[in-house]
Amino acid sequence: MFYTAESVEQLAEHFSQLPGIGKKTAHRLALFVLKMDRPSVDALAAALIAVKEKVRYCSICSNITETDPCAICSSSKRDRTLICVVQEPNDVLAVEKTNEFRGLYHVLGGALSPLDGIGPDDLRIKELLERIGAGGVDEVILAMNPNVEGEATTLYVSRLIKPLGMRVTRIARGLPVGSDLEFADEATLSRALEGRVAV
Amino acid sequence: MFYTAESVEQLAEHFSQLPGIGKKTAHRLALFVLKMDRPSVDALAAALIAVKEKVRYCSICSNITETDPCAICSSSKRDRTLICVVQEPNDVLAVEKTNEFRGLYHVLGGALSPLDGIGPDDLRIKELLERIGAGGVDEVILAMNPNVEGEATTLYVSRLIKPLGMRVTRIARGLPVGSDLEFADEATLSRALEGRVAV
Repeated sequence: MFYTAESVEQLAEHFSQLPGIGKKTAHRLALFVLKMDRPSVDALAAALIAVKEKVRYCSICSNITETDPCAICSSSKRDRTLICVVQEPNDVLAVEKTNEFRGLYHVLGGALSPLDGIGPDDLRIKELLERIGAGGVDEVILAMNPNVEGEATTLYVSRLIKPLGMRVTRIARGLPVGSDLEFADEATLSRALEGRVAV
Repeated sequence: MFYTAESVEQLAEHFSQLPGIGKKTAHRLALFVLKMDRPSVDALAAALIAVKEKVRYCSICSNITETDPCAICSSSKRDRTLICVVQEPNDVLAVEKTNEFRGLYHVLGGALSPLDGIGPDDLRIKELLERIGAGGVDEVILAMNPNVEGEATTLYVSRLIKPLGMRVTRIARGLPVGSDLEFADEATLSRALEGRVAV
């Protein structure tokens, strides 16, 4: 395209490789960068590099962190007898936001998905078993995504942990707060019935 | 937020300053960058800086370019008697894509908008008049956005150019191709009636 600047096209090309950003948005972002002042652009570029340079995975829970072990694993205020197993670092954030959980985490780094070629060896399941094997854990909470891959992972992991003799739980599946029973899908409603609790 | 890496938060903060990117998307992008390989992140960061370093505005038409004058202004294949006036560099791209226009451009850098404090002195209107004053221009096509600010700019610019004795035209407002007359808004339909042409 000779009717615009080459480096704008190149930046748009890079932006369009990010998730959820199409060609038009990428182009709009590139032109926006052109209008930003130089220090802001430098700061954005530096922040990109900093993420790759500073962020590592916690050697205990595999969550993202800048210090190893991470702030949660090294905190004295957390309940070390409780481990919540999640798929991604983002999920840790989601659980933390509830302010309900005071235990530790274990990030698997994904879910079992044979179609995508993701097997047990691609997840940090071995590391989870080693943590549990070291003792001191009373309960493992499995908090996978409520879809096919998450279900498969929940079943697989629970079968490995149960023989070790501790409580293994999963987070409840049911109607989301604020939703409408009338519009709930069959799968969700049947899980909600299955998981009913005494009032 | 102590439960995630500081530099991820910082990158998300930077991303959320881009147009159309909210807090959640910014966070998702930051985590995606974390998963990208190092060379890709370096390339993205370099592309950001390159845009600010290499791109300038053409001294003739004010379009974005890496060479001054830009490829269009310095091309021997373009019709120099015809100038299409647009608001933004993006608009040049849009007109070029039609493959219908072989003249030159003039980018105003916005539209008159008293509410936003944008007056005639903030646009490159003086430069346009100088270009026309230098002679050799037969027709000026005004291709502003069909909204209030664009209309005001069209009227303002046309009043300045008309006394100079050349043809001043504006692009047609009417029904978009592929649309439905039934669903056209009144303003568009009345412009389409006004602008009717002989069959």
